[in-house]
Amino acid sequence: MAAERKGKTREGHEIEFSRIVAFSDGVFSIAITLLVLGLEIPKHLANADIADALWDERENLVAYAISFAVIGRFWVVHHRFFGEVTAFDARLIALNLFYLAWIVLIPFSSQVLGEYGGTTPAVVLYAANLTGVILIGFWQVSDARRAGMTSMTPASHREQRLRAIYIATVFAASIPVAFVTPSLAPLMWLALFFDPARRFAAADD
Amino acid sequence: MAAERKGKTREGHEIEFSRIVAFSDGVFSIAITLLVLGLEIPKHLANADIADALWDERENLVAYAISFAVIGRFWVVHHRFFGEVTAFDARLIALNLFYLAWIVLIPFSSQVLGEYGGTTPAVVLYAANLTGVILIGFWQVSDARRAGMTSMTPASHREQRLRAIYIATVFAASIPVAFVTPSLAPLMWLALFFDPARRFAAADD
Amino acid sequence: MAAERKGKTREGHEIEFSRIVAFSDGVFSIAITLLVLGLEIPKHLANADIADALWDERENLVAYAISFAVIGRFWVVHHRFFGEVTAFDARLIALNLFYLAWIVLIPFSSQVLGEYGGTTPAVVLYAANLTGVILIGFWQVSDARRAGMTSMTPASHREQRLRAIYIATVFAASIPVAFVTPSLAPLMWLALFFDPARRFAAADD
Amino acid sequence: MAAERKGKTREGHEIEFSRIVAFSDGVFSIAITLLVLGLEIPKHLANADIADALWDERENLVAYAISFAVIGRFWVVHHRFFGEVTAFDARLIALNLFYLAWIVLIPFSSQVLGEYGGTTPAVVLYAANLTGVILIGFWQVSDARRAGMTSMTPASHREQRLRAIYIATVFAASIPVAFVTPSLAPLMWLALFFDPARRFAAADD
Repeated sequence: MAAERKGKTREGHEIEFSRIVAFSDGVFSIAITLLVLGLEIPKHLANADIADALWDERENLVAYAISFAVIGRFWVVHHRFFGEVTAFDARLIALNLFYLAWIVLIPFSSQVLGEYGGTTPAVVLYAANLTGVILIGFWQVSDARRAGMTSMTPASHREQRLRAIYIATVFAASIPVAFVTPSLAPLMWLALFFDPARRFAAADD
Repeated sequence: MAAERKGKTREGHEIEFSRIVAFSDGVFSIAITLLVLGLEIPKHLANADIADALWDERENLVAYAISFAVIGRFWVVHHRFFGEVTAFDARLIALNLFYLAWIVLIPFSSQVLGEYGGTTPAVVLYAANLTGVILIGFWQVSDARRAGMTSMTPASHREQRLRAIYIATVFAASIPVAFVTPSLAPLMWLALFFDPARRFAAADD
Repeated sequence: MAAERKGKTREGHEIEFSRIVAFSDGVFSIAITLLVLGLEIPKHLANADIADALWDERENLVAYAISFAVIGRFWVVHHRFFGEVTAFDARLIALNLFYLAWIVLIPFSSQVLGEYGGTTPAVVLYAANLTGVILIGFWQVSDARRAGMTSMTPASHREQRLRAIYIATVFAASIPVAFVTPSLAPLMWLALFFDPARRFAAADD
Repeated sequence: MAAERKGKTREGHEIEFSRIVAFSDGVFSIAITLLVLGLEIPKHLANADIADALWDERENLVAYAISFAVIGRFWVVHHRFFGEVTAFDARLIALNLFYLAWIVLIPFSSQVLGEYGGTTPAVVLYAANLTGVILIGFWQVSDARRAGMTSMTPASHREQRLRAIYIATVFAASIPVAFVTPSLAPLMWLALFFDPARRFAAADD
């Protein structure tokens, strides 16, 4: 059924297509920049307290760095996916908006993580947010592919599926861990710097 | 009289035209991303209170989700309309700015709705904001069409008119309801997921 | 001397040129959207106080409307000017940044105006901010024209000069008025809806 | 080894390339506009106190002006660099994101500088932030050049290296100075308006 969807081709509707991309880029770039609002020191401090106040921001700075890397990484993936999209329809646009709604939540989750980093609720919130992004992202990719709207090779799709499963597993697995040892869970996220999908997939970029 | 308006053609002024679109996309993407500022938990909570504070954000999260869907939907409609615009003049630009001024109010109305969801003033404010968006949006579309600045087919215009009337009616009707039973009014907005215009209109996209 | 400046032509450096425009549009669209942050009602109000709190925002809403119209208008002027730019150099870019720095101040001035609308300092700040925008804007236009970097006709330049002088005069004149009767000064700004430059100039758009 | 990197050419992947640029421009324009959030006066002041409150913002205004000029300047440099990029790969994109992460920190550092201008921690934070931007920026440029992904002439690269070393030296040198006489350090930054690289380099723009 999905294979019968008739989208507009990218070539024939270049301006409309690039608006979707431009809108997504806008949302990504604003979300990534809003992360800085998580850093703030109180006003009217005595001079002797300023260095301490800055030092107290170190966990917020870590949350900033993690989230900047995370959103940046998602943007790269989104970027690569839309480089392979050849047609679009209302459903692709709707899924893209749904995906972006989860991206835009990251500054909030990140702020909570920066403020309450070692606690269960903060870590669970953050991991759940990112798991959501990944699952919806993969839904979008699979849906577009099934509808014949991408030039994605089967190898590339396998690579993306493998990567999505891997990342989602890391985050989902960190949720129960966060209930036992909240400070351990973020360390699990470091596993994201290792990318198993690369090894199994054709490397044509 | 309006039919005599001489606009610049889209083909002959591609860069100027795409700036209007880019500016609108910028405003849409910022407004939709600012919605996240409605989510916030207090600083310096005791660890035991964090989960409660997050739970207290659930109404703000619902307002976030509704408003993200609403702005996203308006963006899609704006997107489709500008895909059919073939010429533009100062009046089209002015109406577009007036339209965007109402879009940008949504993060404010949404924040009030998230904070005071079950109350009459919050619901009335939100419904009035969206009614404004829809009426001005339809004004813009009709004005451009009357001036011969779109490639919109009569069928497509009928579809858009029907949809605008339907959505505006839903929101406007929820205003008096909000004075009696404020918590009922937002449920009426769910009617927006049903789109009667589709049924009566040519489906060429 | 200025006539000897060698800029890059727009045709030969299309991507670079459109980046300047895109950056400017980004700044304009963010500045105009940040205006909504001037609207805010306190948290944790009793239900009976919400309507009052919204009513108390009416002056902020007026400031929002004025500033949205003002920034929108400046964007249109900027838009038209860059439509006529045929070459650019480091100096044009620097002046453009200087211009944008004054645009970005408007959300601040507007917030002060919304909060303290009837007072001398708020009105003076706002009028000074806008006078600055207009003078620097006109400096940018004249400078580019003198360097032979625009396709502006003498008539169009005369029109723009006349308009800049008119608007700057209105705002500058409202500054001394604000010292005597602060609430009168904003009414003077309504004169901006009347555009004397149109009458004297060729109307080719 | 680096010379063997195979990037996508700019011509063959125009849309993907311009997304990188558009995303960067988005981040730059949002970061530069967020600077205005550093300006704020308290609500509910007595009329007699408003002028004083505005006057108290003068240091924040200076920080705003400095940071606007600084981010604007970095944008120009970024702009020029990407005008010479001929190919890109995942590594270039990653370095670009890392660079942007330091740009986005500037509104925070700037706010601290505006609030606590004459103090050692504020000046050190600001100088460290900018030193980071410059070093990573130069890393990005050198890396791309070594990989054969730019059309940069040796002369142009020498000019950029000289400029980066000069600017980084000014900021780094101001850090120890800030420990002794914090109010002197920002004056050193004025040296940035003098550009020694120009003198030694081919002036082809």
